[in-house]
Amino acid sequence: MADRKNLLVIGCGSVGQAVVHKVAQHNDEFGDITIASLHKGKCEQAIRSAIEKGNVRDPSRKLVARELDAMDADAVARAIEEARADIVINVASPYTNMSVMTGCLKAGAHYLDTAVYEEPDKLNQPAPWYALHEWKRKEEFEKAGLTCILSIGCDPGMVNVFVAYAQKHLLDTIETIDIMDVNAGSHNRFFATNFDPEINLREILEDVIYWEDGEWKVIPHHSMKRTFNFPEVGEQTVYAMGHEEVHSLAVNVPARRVQFWMGFSDHYIQVFNTLEKLGLLGIEPVEVDGCKVIPIRLLKKLLPDPTTLAAEYRGKVCVGDLVCGEK
Amino acid sequence: MADRKNLLVIGCGSVGQAVVHKVAQHNDEFGDITIASLHKGKCEQAIRSAIEKGNVRDPSRKLVARELDAMDADAVARAIEEARADIVINVASPYTNMSVMTGCLKAGAHYLDTAVYEEPDKLNQPAPWYALHEWKRKEEFEKAGLTCILSIGCDPGMVNVFVAYAQKHLLDTIETIDIMDVNAGSHNRFFATNFDPEINLREILEDVIYWEDGEWKVIPHHSMKRTFNFPEVGEQTVYAMGHEEVHSLAVNVPARRVQFWMGFSDHYIQVFNTLEKLGLLGIEPVEVDGCKVIPIRLLKKLLPDPTTLAAEYRGKVCVGDLVCGEK
Repeated sequence: MADRKNLLVIGCGSVGQAVVHKVAQHNDEFGDITIASLHKGKCEQAIRSAIEKGNVRDPSRKLVARELDAMDADAVARAIEEARADIVINVASPYTNMSVMTGCLKAGAHYLDTAVYEEPDKLNQPAPWYALHEWKRKEEFEKAGLTCILSIGCDPGMVNVFVAYAQKHLLDTIETIDIMDVNAGSHNRFFATNFDPEINLREILEDVIYWEDGEWKVIPHHSMKRTFNFPEVGEQTVYAMGHEEVHSLAVNVPARRVQFWMGFSDHYIQVFNTLEKLGLLGIEPVEVDGCKVIPIRLLKKLLPDPTTLAAEYRGKVCVGDLVCGEK
Repeated sequence: MADRKNLLVIGCGSVGQAVVHKVAQHNDEFGDITIASLHKGKCEQAIRSAIEKGNVRDPSRKLVARELDAMDADAVARAIEEARADIVINVASPYTNMSVMTGCLKAGAHYLDTAVYEEPDKLNQPAPWYALHEWKRKEEFEKAGLTCILSIGCDPGMVNVFVAYAQKHLLDTIETIDIMDVNAGSHNRFFATNFDPEINLREILEDVIYWEDGEWKVIPHHSMKRTFNFPEVGEQTVYAMGHEEVHSLAVNVPARRVQFWMGFSDHYIQVFNTLEKLGLLGIEPVEVDGCKVIPIRLLKKLLPDPTTLAAEYRGKVCVGDLVCGEK
């Protein structure tokens, strides 16, 4: 591994494309960068876009596109070796987490992702989510001398860092942690998701899990809401929602309550409820004209491709932590 | 044909089941009655229900269930012969009209249906609709000495008879004909259609065609509305909509304007718009996990089966004609 100092990015959807721009801006640190996805064309397009926008800091470093099925751990290991990658950033579907982790262990690469693993045919898994799959592999990564950083995006990720900062520098004891996520921007579409519609709608559909008084509480989605006056984006209605950082924070930070809140417009709630009540968010196959169709998969094909939203997006987002405690 | 005096009912959905009860109440006139559909079990169930509810007037007449693919004209002809049927009532999907008409011509049976023929992959066909398919076969039926009564349900059908009555007995000249259809009942479901969801939603989705000042006008669906104080059901909002009787009345009755109006609740419009805007009413196949899926067909599988609505239905319906003219 000593001769390696390169990066492999797996996944090139709306999140992956942002990652490509960001890592290209630091390719003097990351070395040669390979972008791999089921659709090589998307990787090539992301590279062209990074070059055109002047986001490639060191033009002497290579930017390589390649096709990869991230559900195939051996293929992931081969991709790591061919890229001579020291680090893998996995921003493909979270369905791929376990196979990409296995590939990293096989080929010897550090691992980062942005969301917890999900099984495609299961919802409402017990808390804490990470304990079901990722945390079980901690020892393997330790033995291999490899770092594995889970869910290190904006939220989850940045918001976990904020809590760690508060714990270390601002407070002696923490009473409550509220992760607050409001998108007050407009994409100018009737209805759209900012990342993979299937993953996004599943997380909203699930029961809400939060931590309070030493135990996990479970309530139906959209059943608890509050309004809050946010910096920059003003008063917003946010709903308790299940989310990854609740599971990692509750286990790692002593707090009486850890909860996640997301802003939804009335229009969003109305469309979401319609889709849910009609069964269009269903994850069980339905037979249609001799084909087995999973409703949420059809919906994913019909909703706007999240990578097309950026051009018309206007407005501000506010994501942060409301941490209360004593100094 | 002389020895025949029986009835064949084709189709056993929500409309077909109502027809079975009604014709069984008059089986002294209709003779032996065969009910045929793709699903023989539905026919058997309709017969059991007619018997249980005491709707069979003459118990000496037979009630027979059989399987039939009504898209197969030869199979329809065989079914007519086996039933020794003099009359066929076609209440299967209007996709079957032309094959059932062909079957009637082959086997020599009179024909009735309740809706105009549609091609599954086409919307917004030019007016008058009947001229595209059914009326082309007028001569064949005349030559065969067979009667073919198109669209003789409630609306279209009963409302055409009302206009004929007004023309014959009430008015000298007719200025305007407004067909008004308001369902002010509640089925207690989030969203449902009273007959085949695919056919019902297609007709609402289509552009609105109406007749005015000697020509066909075409406007988008839900783009013209009015409120009207109906007998029994009170003030209701109705929307101009495309419908069969506009096409037959405009051609056969001299009137300055012929238009169809249907009542929709705000909730209905909202759900419908959501489905339309998201492409879930689409009739073009979409590839999902290697399968070609027609969105409206999946939706049809997810919406309540119209035959299950009757038990909880409460309220009143008002369907009629507003005919204005001079005496």
